[in-house]
Amino acid sequence: MRVLVPFANDEPKSRLAPVLSAAERREFSVAMLCDVVDAIERVGYDPELLVPEPLDCRAEGADSAAAADVGERLGSLPATVDDRPLSAAVNAALDERTGAGVEQAVVMADLALATPTALRRLFAAGGDVAVAPGRGGGTNALVVRDSGFSVDYHGASYRDHRRIAAEAGLSVAVVDSMRLATDVDEPSDLLEVLLHGDGRARQWLIDAGFAVDDEDDGRVGVRRS
Amino acid sequence: MRVLVPFANDEPKSRLAPVLSAAERREFSVAMLCDVVDAIERVGYDPELLVPEPLDCRAEGADSAAAADVGERLGSLPATVDDRPLSAAVNAALDERTGAGVEQAVVMADLALATPTALRRLFAAGGDVAVAPGRGGGTNALVVRDSGFSVDYHGASYRDHRRIAAEAGLSVAVVDSMRLATDVDEPSDLLEVLLHGDGRARQWLIDAGFAVDDEDDGRVGVRRS
Repeated sequence: MRVLVPFANDEPKSRLAPVLSAAERREFSVAMLCDVVDAIERVGYDPELLVPEPLDCRAEGADSAAAADVGERLGSLPATVDDRPLSAAVNAALDERTGAGVEQAVVMADLALATPTALRRLFAAGGDVAVAPGRGGGTNALVVRDSGFSVDYHGASYRDHRRIAAEAGLSVAVVDSMRLATDVDEPSDLLEVLLHGDGRARQWLIDAGFAVDDEDDGRVGVRRS
Repeated sequence: MRVLVPFANDEPKSRLAPVLSAAERREFSVAMLCDVVDAIERVGYDPELLVPEPLDCRAEGADSAAAADVGERLGSLPATVDDRPLSAAVNAALDERTGAGVEQAVVMADLALATPTALRRLFAAGGDVAVAPGRGGGTNALVVRDSGFSVDYHGASYRDHRRIAAEAGLSVAVVDSMRLATDVDEPSDLLEVLLHGDGRARQWLIDAGFAVDDEDDGRVGVRRS
């Protein structure tokens, strides 16, 4: 299985701007990417990055030792550089390898709750296409086993991907995973990372002062000290 | 397996007030309850309602034929009436039956995406306690196999339930399911019902004029016509 991880770190996670600065969002995005890469490797596959420009994590302004560690970690991964929009870049990468028996996966870089167990369920799901829907209509992870399929990540891509598969006569397996459904886009998603994460992204949030906030009215949020 | 479904229909789903009237929220809540009951029955178990007062769905102001159908459907289910707060009522119900080999489940009534497949995963999960976490720190479904466990649904109950189990020396299995993690509380949750539901709740939303709204900026929401 070839496993692609698209990642863009120029202006990431703008919807987290109410709670994180631009530099913090870049650091946190890299932490999530590291967690995703770790989980894929622990399943036994070698992730390939798909980036709009060469990745230089050490230039991102993070503090020294941790940043050097992360830079080395990510710098050692194979990477395809393609500056087109996400769907075009993914489709081009998928088209590089086609043929009988070729299995390719696309796993988003902001799945901070991804575990080897959850990814194994995705990779083992049947179907010409296997989809892990994201909350909010997106597609957080895919396995593609037929070159008749192409991606279109804009908008309600889960629905679009099912339609694209159906129009090509391809079967679709849907993976029911809260972990894979949780892409981290909004401040409320940080709570999920604090509660269910166990990697660098969760540690980054804790080091940045975030904690679970059990409010008096029974709702749960995050606070930053 | 005894399967309890707590349900209160006096002032349900207040966080949906921006998009649904009080009468609509009651109707929609009943539709979700019906979907949950259906899913449990399709697994092969007989759900028991846990209600603060006797349920009379036909008195809720819904329109005639559908309401009569729903009233008959729910009226035929066994129900325990307990007007204490949720946690006290659930603990009292769990305490009614204890002993070696007794398995009891508690499944929330607003899991409009619950399917037999997702529930089977919960019911088959090991552990003295099996938990399906809800988005936002809650506990959407549980299996309890040891009388040393009790529930506390206030606040970040997922974390509290893990702590309660750990303090009692009980093992916990966590079920990773987007379907079971999605309790329908907020307007944004309606999108999930439209995209992934296949029962009465989804149909109720469609009949009420709701549809998936692919916005120009790539975000996805719901609109009502």
